[in-house]
Amino acid sequence: MASKQYVVIGLGRFGRSVAETLFTMGHDVLAIDSDEDVIQNISDKVTHAVQMDATDEYALRTLGIRNFDVAVVTIGSNVQASIMTTLILRESGVKYIVAKAQSEMHAKVLTKIGADKVILPEKDMGVRVAHNLVSSNLLDFIELSPDYSLIEIQAPPEWYGKNILELDVRSKYGINIMAIKSHDDINISPNAKDMIKEGDVLLCIGNTDDLARLEHMISGD
Amino acid sequence: MASKQYVVIGLGRFGRSVAETLFTMGHDVLAIDSDEDVIQNISDKVTHAVQMDATDEYALRTLGIRNFDVAVVTIGSNVQASIMTTLILRESGVKYIVAKAQSEMHAKVLTKIGADKVILPEKDMGVRVAHNLVSSNLLDFIELSPDYSLIEIQAPPEWYGKNILELDVRSKYGINIMAIKSHDDINISPNAKDMIKEGDVLLCIGNTDDLARLEHMISGD
Ligand SMILES: Nc1ncnc2c1ncn2[C@@H]1O[C@H](COP(=O)(O)OP(=O)(O)OP(=O)(O)O)[C@@H](O)[C@H]1O
Ligand SMILES: Nc1ncnc2c1ncn2[C@@H]1O[C@H](COP(=O)(O)OP(=O)(O)OP(=O)(O)O)[C@@H](O)[C@H]1O
Ligand SMILES: [Ca+2]
Ligand SMILES: [Ca+2]
Ligand SMILES: [Ca+2]
Ligand SMILES: [Ca+2]
Repeated sequence: MASKQYVVIGLGRFGRSVAETLFTMGHDVLAIDSDEDVIQNISDKVTHAVQMDATDEYALRTLGIRNFDVAVVTIGSNVQASIMTTLILRESGVKYIVAKAQSEMHAKVLTKIGADKVILPEKDMGVRVAHNLVSSNLLDFIELSPDYSLIEIQAPPEWYGKNILELDVRSKYGINIMAIKSHDDINISPNAKDMIKEGDVLLCIGNTDDLARLEHMISGD
Repeated sequence: MASKQYVVIGLGRFGRSVAETLFTMGHDVLAIDSDEDVIQNISDKVTHAVQMDATDEYALRTLGIRNFDVAVVTIGSNVQASIMTTLILRESGVKYIVAKAQSEMHAKVLTKIGADKVILPEKDMGVRVAHNLVSSNLLDFIELSPDYSLIEIQAPPEWYGKNILELDVRSKYGINIMAIKSHDDINISPNAKDMIKEGDVLLCIGNTDDLARLEHMISGD
């Protein structure tokens, strides 16, 4: 893979995870944080780590910031610093800017000043975790688009010993079983004759409303 | 669905998202935070909101905490408060406890003292976002298990006009195309004859290593 140059600014828990993952995947990563301790902690997990205030436009330019392909602004609580840094990056010629927002309002501002992508990691994960909690049969819930989602469910006892054709969730609920996990095995192309066994976990995709109906059904209402 | 009683403790961005989502889904949600302003902000988005220090065991018991089905401890930076609160909840008789961790070390402690599920939202989202950044063709990456993942990719131009049978990604890469998104339409049960068109987005599932090979291929390496 043609390795790209990434700069990650603000190494909180989220920024550190982004930086370390990119570096592990073989990319060049420059980590910037105003906190000296943070920089010391990350220094051997990225290509370069520099302690500086990212709102210092001159210092950022001196680092050759415009040569980076992607900048990820993960400054969190300090909304003003996040906005100023994003603005400086936009004007510096960096190709692609991703910025983390605190709130929808912060997100709007970041988009307006030119962030190519804005993410709200805590909010997104909160939605996902809430869905996962609601039904004890629901193991995971992932929104794929405003309309479609993926859910991972524990097969209900009524389904044991039946095959996909017999269950007929496609016509009953409008959803599709994409994969069947049994113990440490996963069947990623189940066919009509594949039987559901006790302990199986099913990965289903479908319209979010249809999935909700299935969720309710398996919760025993 | 039998509506459950949830208590969410520590309404940072993550906790607030969990609490509001559960409430929107029709559940009873008690929100607890030591910060009066936080409680004021969330009060009309949950069933009840109470300002108190969750490490105050007596106050927590007085609230009737043992009658809750699920407790979600989303206190963040204050690791000590997160641990103490989890311990008090475990001893109070709450059935299911989910706790947010700052770091792997914090996660280990929470598990040891009896949290049923421990989550690291910033870390998990960081991994996901890093994968999403690496290839401009990769739109999303979701780990389904330590071995299997789901990716969403922009179909590369070489695939336009070919059907799933011709592409044969299953035997070439060991992965499966689970769905094809075209504009605002999604085909959740593509068959061998379905043709890939310009602008299509493909949802693929497979072994994480196999998906990485596919990712590299479509990045044009
Ligand atoms: N002006 C700045 N220049 C460089 N780094 C900064 C600046 N302001 C804040 N930071 C750094 O950004 C990092 C993340 O900020 P903070 O911890 O407030 O965010 P957060 O959203 O709580 O993070 P997370 O939830 O990911 O842990 C911190 O390490 C902080 O030192
Ligand atoms: N002992 C306590 N009792 C009740 N609430 C507490 C206690 N300690 C901290 N909190 C609350 O927990 C909430 C979340 O804490 P904090 O903001 O440090 O976490 P965070 O991980 O940065 O959150 P997020 O990333 O989700 O925004 C805060 O609103 C804080 O007031
Ligand atoms: Ca590449
Ligand atoms: Ca109820
Ligand atoms: Ca923080
Ligand atoms: Ca956070």
